[in-house]
Amino acid sequence: MSLSMYSSSVPVFARMFGNALMWLDKAQAHADARKFDATNLLGMRLAPDMLPLTRQFQIATDGAKGCVARLAGVDVPKWDDNEASMDDLRARLRRASDYVQTFTPQQFEGSESREIVLPMRSGEPLRFSGENYLKHFVLPNLYFHLTTAYALLRHAGVDLGKKDFLG
Amino acid sequence: MSLSMYSSSVPVFARMFGNALMWLDKAQAHADARKFDATNLLGMRLAPDMLPLTRQFQIATDGAKGCVARLAGVDVPKWDDNEASMDDLRARLRRASDYVQTFTPQQFEGSESREIVLPMRSGEPLRFSGENYLKHFVLPNLYFHLTTAYALLRHAGVDLGKKDFLG
Repeated sequence: MSLSMYSSSVPVFARMFGNALMWLDKAQAHADARKFDATNLLGMRLAPDMLPLTRQFQIATDGAKGCVARLAGVDVPKWDDNEASMDDLRARLRRASDYVQTFTPQQFEGSESREIVLPMRSGEPLRFSGENYLKHFVLPNLYFHLTTAYALLRHAGVDLGKKDFLG
Repeated sequence: MSLSMYSSSVPVFARMFGNALMWLDKAQAHADARKFDATNLLGMRLAPDMLPLTRQFQIATDGAKGCVARLAGVDVPKWDDNEASMDDLRARLRRASDYVQTFTPQQFEGSESREIVLPMRSGEPLRFSGENYLKHFVLPNLYFHLTTAYALLRHAGVDLGKKDFLG
C-alpha cells in the first residue's frame, strides 16, 4: 500500500494512542509504588499557564476524531470532556482508537483536495486542503499534545523512555 | 500534488525548523528583557535525566537530514554537534532547512517501499519500509524533540503559544 491520507492518519493515531495507554500503565505503577493516588497526576501542568494532563489527552483524541470525520465528510461526534480518573483517561484513548479504526481507506479517497473548514472559537474559521490539514495541523497538534503529556509524566518521575513514546 | 513521501517530509521539516527559529527569537527577546544571557537556556532540561535544549535541536535536525538522505539513497552527511550559542542553534536549524530542501520529489520516488536500515548504537539495526520509517519513526521523533524544546522554553518563561508551535 502506498502512502495515502488513510495510511498517514488512522494507523498513526491508533499506534500513538496505544503507546499512550502504556504510559498510563507505567504512571499507575509509579503511583502505586510511591503510594500516592494516581489521580493526582491528572491535574499536573508543566507550567501554570499550560494545560493539565487530562486536557492534553482530551485534545489529542479530539484532534484525531475530528480529522477522520472531516476527511471522510461525516459529522464530528461530540464527546463529553469529563474524565476524572486514570481509568477514564484509558477509556478515552481506547474510544478514540476504536473510533478512528471504524473508517476505511475508501472513505478517505480524494480527501487530499477536500476543503476542510475549521471553526475557531474567535474570529474567522481556518481553511485548508485535506492534505495541508493533516500534515500541518492535525499531526503537529497530535504530537504536540502527546509529547506534552509524556513530558509531564516524565517530569513527575514516571519511568518512561523514547521507546515508550515510539512504541 | 497528492500526498507523497516528499510532500510528507521536506515541507514539514522546513516549516517546523522555520517555526523553531521564531521560538529562538522569542527566547532571545525574553533573555534580553530579563537581562540574562540567552546561552543559559541551551543547557536547560525538563528533568535531570532528559536531554538539554541544544541536544533536542541537534537530534531533531539529525532526524530530518537522515530521513531525506536515506529516502533518496544518498549518504547521510555527518555534522559536528558543537553548537554553543543561540546563533549556533539558529545556524543549525537553517542548515537543516536548507539541506532538506536541496532534495527533489523525483529523488523520493519509490521510497515508500525502499528498505531503510538504521544502525543502532547497541544491538541489531532497525529495519523499516520507507513509509513506516517516515510515519512511525521520523515524524514522531521530529515532533517529540521539537515539542520538548518548545516545552523547555515555555517552562523557562518564554512567551510562546500553540500558534508559534504550528507556525
